[in-house]
Amino acid sequence: MPPKLVASKKVYQGKISIRVDDYFLNNRMLRAEVIQHSDSVGVIPVDDKENVILVEQFRFAPKKSLIEIPAGTIEENETPVEAALREMNQEIGFKGKITPLLHWYLAPGYDTEKMYIFLATDLKMVRDRLPMDEDETIQVRKMKLKTAVFACMNGQISDCKTIAAILLVARLNDVHQ
Amino acid sequence: MPPKLVASKKVYQGKISIRVDDYFLNNRMLRAEVIQHSDSVGVIPVDDKENVILVEQFRFAPKKSLIEIPAGTIEENETPVEAALREMNQEIGFKGKITPLLHWYLAPGYDTEKMYIFLATDLKMVRDRLPMDEDETIQVRKMKLKTAVFACMNGQISDCKTIAAILLVARLNDVHQ
Repeated sequence: MPPKLVASKKVYQGKISIRVDDYFLNNRMLRAEVIQHSDSVGVIPVDDKENVILVEQFRFAPKKSLIEIPAGTIEENETPVEAALREMNQEIGFKGKITPLLHWYLAPGYDTEKMYIFLATDLKMVRDRLPMDEDETIQVRKMKLKTAVFACMNGQISDCKTIAAILLVARLNDVHQ
Repeated sequence: MPPKLVASKKVYQGKISIRVDDYFLNNRMLRAEVIQHSDSVGVIPVDDKENVILVEQFRFAPKKSLIEIPAGTIEENETPVEAALREMNQEIGFKGKITPLLHWYLAPGYDTEKMYIFLATDLKMVRDRLPMDEDETIQVRKMKLKTAVFACMNGQISDCKTIAAILLVARLNDVHQ
């Protein structure tokens, strides 16, 4: 039996917000904090030499620099595909053919964020490069898909969505180490 | 240049909390909301017939039932390995040989949670089964690793950590579709 929502209250409102839900489960009242976060996109750009184009940036939450797939929040009035093309433009300066692969939840135990995952192929440099978001200082990291798989296995890449994305594309492309 | 933290303020305190950081980057002051969440463990239990033991539960944030690896927060005074064994006991009723694989961040753009990932083999049913957490109503889902890989590729499994974990173990075990 799914839990039954009894009450829901917003306790913090910002870019991210938190709501506290009271629900009835197994004959008991329980309370859960839920992070409300916009849905997002992640793109795996693979060029015609089987290089994957990743980005490295300092992340304030874990306080370290991480290698990740280009990704970001879907803006209002944007479709997931439009968001994927915008993020590719902003973060790596490429456009390409966008193929939807999957969607997944990043932390479904407490966070609403759903991320749509795309493969980008037939990559071409954009002429009308958009400015990056003001909080981004990004370095582009291009590497063979095979090298990226190895970097996932040995801990050099430590972002979960990036590991899932790279192992997924490696499996679709039948890449072995 | 990494950003320089100038001020940090807690704006919500619960099981999860939010802090607002002001920092200096690219000659500008910027503000970021950061979710502070405890670190956690995820376990991929694989039996001697190459079945993986997953759990299905209703998740309140995405409002749907998801298939996931056994996982949970590391309690105070617990090591990650102890947490992995406790979660296996509570969620699936097994103990086993625990091998550390990786750690990864679930949503490093705004969330501090780091998850330690373990492989569990030599599985044995526990005699001293611990009670589940009060907010958990879990169904155990045992399936061939190969079937789990297929469920990741076709969207039946839509939890990012579970997709990363299963594709990782499939690659380590050299499982093909």
